[in-house]
Amino acid sequence: MKKIFFAIACTFFFQLNIFSQRLIDFVNPFIGTAAHGHTYPGATLPFGMVQLSPDNGTQGWDWCSGYNYSDSLIQGFSHTHLSGTGIGDLCDISVMPLVNVQPSIQKIKSSFSHKQEIATPGYYAVLLKNFDVWTELTATVRCGFHKYTFPDSKNAAIKIDLGFAINWDAPTECSIKKINDSTFVGYRFSTGWAKDQKIFFAIKLNKAVKVLSLFADDQSINSNETKGKDVKAFLQFETIKGERVLMKVGLSSADIEGALESLNEIKDWNFERVKKDAENIWERELRKLQIRSDDIALKQTFYTAIYHTMLSPNRFSDRYGNYKGINGKIQNGKSIYTTSSLWDTFRAENPLLTLTQTELVPSIINSYLSFYDQYGLLPVWDLQFNETNCMTGYHCIPIIADAILKGITGFDYEKAYYAMLASANQNIRGADVYRQYNYVPQDKVGSSVTITLEYSYDDWCIAQVAKRIGKMTDYRDFMKRSLNWRNLFDRKTGFARAKNSDGKWVVPFDPFYSEHDEKKAAYTEGNAWQHSFFVPHDVYGLMNYLGGQKTICR
Amino acid sequence: MKKIFFAIACTFFFQLNIFSQRLIDFVNPFIGTAAHGHTYPGATLPFGMVQLSPDNGTQGWDWCSGYNYSDSLIQGFSHTHLSGTGIGDLCDISVMPLVNVQPSIQKIKSSFSHKQEIATPGYYAVLLKNFDVWTELTATVRCGFHKYTFPDSKNAAIKIDLGFAINWDAPTECSIKKINDSTFVGYRFSTGWAKDQKIFFAIKLNKAVKVLSLFADDQSINSNETKGKDVKAFLQFETIKGERVLMKVGLSSADIEGALESLNEIKDWNFERVKKDAENIWERELRKLQIRSDDIALKQTFYTAIYHTMLSPNRFSDRYGNYKGINGKIQNGKSIYTTSSLWDTFRAENPLLTLTQTELVPSIINSYLSFYDQYGLLPVWDLQFNETNCMTGYHCIPIIADAILKGITGFDYEKAYYAMLASANQNIRGADVYRQYNYVPQDKVGSSVTITLEYSYDDWCIAQVAKRIGKMTDYRDFMKRSLNWRNLFDRKTGFARAKNSDGKWVVPFDPFYSEHDEKKAAYTEGNAWQHSFFVPHDVYGLMNYLGGQKTICR
Repeated sequence: MKKIFFAIACTFFFQLNIFSQRLIDFVNPFIGTAAHGHTYPGATLPFGMVQLSPDNGTQGWDWCSGYNYSDSLIQGFSHTHLSGTGIGDLCDISVMPLVNVQPSIQKIKSSFSHKQEIATPGYYAVLLKNFDVWTELTATVRCGFHKYTFPDSKNAAIKIDLGFAINWDAPTECSIKKINDSTFVGYRFSTGWAKDQKIFFAIKLNKAVKVLSLFADDQSINSNETKGKDVKAFLQFETIKGERVLMKVGLSSADIEGALESLNEIKDWNFERVKKDAENIWERELRKLQIRSDDIALKQTFYTAIYHTMLSPNRFSDRYGNYKGINGKIQNGKSIYTTSSLWDTFRAENPLLTLTQTELVPSIINSYLSFYDQYGLLPVWDLQFNETNCMTGYHCIPIIADAILKGITGFDYEKAYYAMLASANQNIRGADVYRQYNYVPQDKVGSSVTITLEYSYDDWCIAQVAKRIGKMTDYRDFMKRSLNWRNLFDRKTGFARAKNSDGKWVVPFDPFYSEHDEKKAAYTEGNAWQHSFFVPHDVYGLMNYLGGQKTICR
Repeated sequence: MKKIFFAIACTFFFQLNIFSQRLIDFVNPFIGTAAHGHTYPGATLPFGMVQLSPDNGTQGWDWCSGYNYSDSLIQGFSHTHLSGTGIGDLCDISVMPLVNVQPSIQKIKSSFSHKQEIATPGYYAVLLKNFDVWTELTATVRCGFHKYTFPDSKNAAIKIDLGFAINWDAPTECSIKKINDSTFVGYRFSTGWAKDQKIFFAIKLNKAVKVLSLFADDQSINSNETKGKDVKAFLQFETIKGERVLMKVGLSSADIEGALESLNEIKDWNFERVKKDAENIWERELRKLQIRSDDIALKQTFYTAIYHTMLSPNRFSDRYGNYKGINGKIQNGKSIYTTSSLWDTFRAENPLLTLTQTELVPSIINSYLSFYDQYGLLPVWDLQFNETNCMTGYHCIPIIADAILKGITGFDYEKAYYAMLASANQNIRGADVYRQYNYVPQDKVGSSVTITLEYSYDDWCIAQVAKRIGKMTDYRDFMKRSLNWRNLFDRKTGFARAKNSDGKWVVPFDPFYSEHDEKKAAYTEGNAWQHSFFVPHDVYGLMNYLGGQKTICR
């Protein structure tokens, strides 16, 4: 018997020890929310569909993700957010608990203090000072879960603001319909940086709504449902002091059926359990990469960065496998992901995911291939299955090549290869002139140096996959193409430089000069010093062009 | 220790004993399915929304409930059926497993044998001989559950036939939409004996459908969804020998959201458990009325009759509380019931329900009151929240009066009373001439004797409620009205007889003569011998009119 007690005691101690070292405790979701960080502090699961996070309601580039640490007001909590992109979009299905506010189309904000605000992986909480409502948020993959602790009030409400929009984004058609006094469904269609966005929602409360006040395009609507460009709904009820009102919000990009099914991710009203589940999921993910250090700040920086690597791409298919395809119609697929800012992620984030999320990589690549099926090309910068064609290169190619060369299976290599070829043979994005001149002439297409260097690298990636699947003629062709970077390398100055179509260097040349205008710039968001070294596939070639080993090591 | 074993053994024996005497084993759902019985043998719960039962596909009065025991063919299994009414309606959402049949708009039937057919409370099974598919059906309140055991086939399918209709009924608009390869939603709107019928459905299979073949109004449709008057869908797949394909079909009269929610009544694919749950629910209900006898046939007759008393009214509100209201729009209410054939049930069935279903009665009466809210009158013969105005009297009145006088609470007595008054003061159904002449003149309104006797009784019921809630003037007025039966009683012949508006008896008079034509008949579905004694509220009065105690007891 003593042995058993000892074993139990050990187990207990061991578990205690684990808990005292939870890695999620090192994650600070506020990191990156200030200045131009463009992160959000709200509740989400790794690669989840829902990012439930506060929005200040301020327009401007620093509020691309809805929230900036410098702000002091909150206009609501919306269910989709971008992390780290600098794109002012999404923020769909904004909701806000209110007290003693007459329903109207006016903006309603509350002040808040960082002293009464908590953000941990999968959980966010804040006191809305104007209404004395303690707001807590958590989430499953496709369902946001809200817990509002209200004061005593004859006039409490939850505002659903489908017209709420930030920066690039604007609603095109919104709808809400009452199913019963605690269930509501609808959608928000919008256009913005991604032209065709559809989010369907299903809302379920643990409390009966007494009065439903609707507004559509500035008009008060006396009905159980409405439709319009700007739709606002006030779900009104009475509360007693300390009463907890819980609300689930399920999403789907396909249809209301899918949104309702998302609600089934949370079977009951146990907020604490869902929060704990979210924490456990994050803890498990964070444990994949561990560091040892006594420097708490370093650990916070590290684990928060790891946390940020697991925010996107985002689950796009609903529980039925449905999602809004690139033609706006419903498509069906297994575990489809979106939000692929590939110019930002192909160098480091995607290779990291092959190590930390090996089992997820096939789903991500199959999502690219579904995109290719519907669009004819692999995605460049896919948001909600829209091609935004942003930034240079076609960097699905290195990502897929990386997975193939690392031996990751679960997708069709042959199909992936032909999709890569389609990208390399397209006639947009300067690819045609690149093939014609073996470099991109600056007088034909802007950002010519960056594009040339990046296409060269992508060509090399195609060559490696061609070799891997036995297409040796293609291998030789693309290996040749992969040397195109040399056509823009000026041995005299030691930099990659822009050439016009007459084969002459563009002058004047200043290796420190950076131009932001895409057409005028030779380099994208950088200068010759930053871009010239992007020859990761031909480092010995680069060394020779720079004057050989001696010059470089000098 | 021995004592514990003894206790366990006793418990086991006791339980065994209970099981060996299951009352559901005495129920034979085939009783009433032959000749003009108009019952159905399929699977349902007490007062359930779903009545999942085979349809022969034969038109004709004896097939009002889809199935007649004399038939040898099955065209499908639909989800709504009437029991015992002689009304050829409903039979919505017909489905049928098939093997080796090319999808087409042609009728498809299979032969079957009663030797390979089982019907017990909550369960029905049959072998479809043409396809060698063993079909089993069970149900929850709002969800049908199908289990098909298929043979080996490259060409198996489930046909969804929204165009399927019997007798009075015809589809007006049907729709089906694929959500994913195992989920489908849609609706069937139809008109028939009840003019405005809407059934929304959600279908979920435990198997992926390979090919979906759709037909709308005789045209083959190449799409994932379609709409039309007559819509047929073939869900096609391959099966191996003995493979069990399970399918759930959830219903709502309000919307697809409600139908999807009905699917949540069955959380998994455990057919046996759902069947067992249904049996347990029936067993519990049957145990409310027990007889002792060694006559097995008598017990079968008795318990099957009790079973039949618990088939309607039917749950109409979905899990959200929503249902199609009398104006065709969605209404919301708590536990709303429909299918109220009140002329058939006010004498015996409804009084019985106050004893066996006391807790259900308030919901039934509140359903009548919701009907009154929407229509201005209490229901006479409500089917799917349509007033069919069939048969004589306004017999919601005695039903509500019975409940009030028995002290059943849970509904608004005052409101119920005003609803009764509205019925008594209406200007249709001969009520106006009844008030004018103090009897219904046969030259003004047919079935005049039956109507006069029944209105007199209903008046007495109003009087009793008036007294109960203290409306003494009304009490006296309606007690006076309740004697109106005397105005049609011919003391000479000893029968209630028709009079014209001139106050003279209608001749010729034959107490054995029965006329079925509503307008020509003086008595509804009967003759003077059958109707004259319907004075349940004034038996001493009747005795005096018949010549006093001596004459009656002669």
